[in-house]
Formats: sequence, C-alpha cells, structure tokens
Amino acid sequence: MKDTSPALRVALAYFRAWTGKDMDTAMRYVADDVVCEAPAGRIEGAAAFRAFMAPFAQTVLGADLIAGFGDADTALVMYDTRTVPVASAPGADCLTVRDGKIVHSRLVFDQAPFDAARSAAAAAEHRTA
Amino acid sequence: MKDTSPALRVALAYFRAWTGKDMDTAMRYVADDVVCEAPAGRIEGAAAFRAFMAPFAQTVLGADLIAGFGDADTALVMYDTRTVPVASAPGADCLTVRDGKIVHSRLVFDQAPFDAARSAAAAAEHRTA
Repeated sequence: MKDTSPALRVALAYFRAWTGKDMDTAMRYVADDVVCEAPAGRIEGAAAFRAFMAPFAQTVLGADLIAGFGDADTALVMYDTRTVPVASAPGADCLTVRDGKIVHSRLVFDQAPFDAARSAAAAAEHRTA
Repeated sequence: MKDTSPALRVALAYFRAWTGKDMDTAMRYVADDVVCEAPAGRIEGAAAFRAFMAPFAQTVLGADLIAGFGDADTALVMYDTRTVPVASAPGADCLTVRDGKIVHSRLVFDQAPFDAARSAAAAAEHRTA
C-alpha cells in the first residue's frame, strides 16, 4: 500500500466517506464535471454521479480495502463490500484526480448478484401477493 | 505506471500472455497451488485455473491495460477486453506473487453482459430450431 500518492490519498478519503454512507463528504472529492464509466453505462456530472452512488452507499454494511496504489494523478483501488442485497460485492475503481478532485472513474463490479437478488425479491413479492 | 515492481512485472507478463491466447506462456507465471477468487466462485490449483481462463482467453479479440501498479509481492491491474460475446468487458485483478509466480488472484469483472449474451444466443437458437 503506497499512501505517498496524492491521487491515492483522494481515492481513499473518497472510499472511506462513501462506504461510511457520508455522501456529503464523499462529494467533496468529486469534480463537478466528473465522468464515471460504470458497468451499466456512462454517468456525467456530479449530480448524476451522486444519484448513482448514494443509493448503493446506503446498502453498505461494511467495506474492506483489498489493495490501493497510485501515482501523481491516477489511483487504482480494489475493495470488498458487504451490502444488504449481496454479502460480498467486490469492486475496483481506477480514478483520475485533478486538483484534489476525482474527474474520471472507471468502475468495475459484478452486476450479476445484484440482478439475482432483485429477481429473488420480485419472486418473493409475487408469492406473497 | 510503475514497472519497477517485481509483482507487476509478473502480472503484466501473465496479462500479455493470456490476452494473446498463449495459455502455455501464461501458466508459467501461475503457481501450482494458485487460488483464484472469481465472481463465480473459488478456483483452486493450476489445472482448474487454466480450465477457467483458457475458454475465456479464446474469445479475446483485443485487450488494453487501463492501469497497473504493484509493490514487491502485490500487483493490481485494470484492463479492458474486447471479446466475441461482449464488446467491452473490463476486469480488475489483484495478484499476489511469490517466487515469480501468481499464488493468489482476486478477480473482478461484470458477469451480467456475458449472461445476457448467453441468453440472447439461446433465444436465437430456440427461434431457429
């Protein structure tokens, strides 16, 4: 773990904030014109990004950093999250940081267990309807 | 991109080999007792690992490294792959390297577009049957 990277410092502060459900603090590390390439598509701008991340952050029960590295303007982190619908939902995020704020995020995680949890919840609702 | 990390050198050689469909070379960087934590579950041992990776490697049309970092024994890489079923299938791999070989891989990628491609192929087969 190298924490001498300016970009990694921002990435870890952002990670601790959102996994702690503190989206106000998390968004202090996100640029107004952030672009996020997520599994479900491209998200542009801080408002859309917050609308994407906040509902997920609310489901987080715990989070562990698996690894984090960075240099002057790029950070790469991998983490595991325990969430309400999915017990282990690891993710990886490659962040570009400019002037202390995240301007680009390339986010990788597995949507399949979330899709499966949604289907199971819908089926359970159907059975009890 | 720091390529002074011994673990990253192994990770990149492994990445270039498997994305180039050269599984014989790729496996030279994989320990006999490798453990891989993949989205679909835990894979133990080099034979099972090769059986998991080789069919995917065969579908790769191109691959780009997005970022790669490492230290003495850990490497973290993110890449994008173009594959036959899925046009853009990014992944991230956190590798633990011992004596020049990968002993542990924590692999993150999105299974959802592969599931969707399989469903679409099955539906097409059903229509033409």
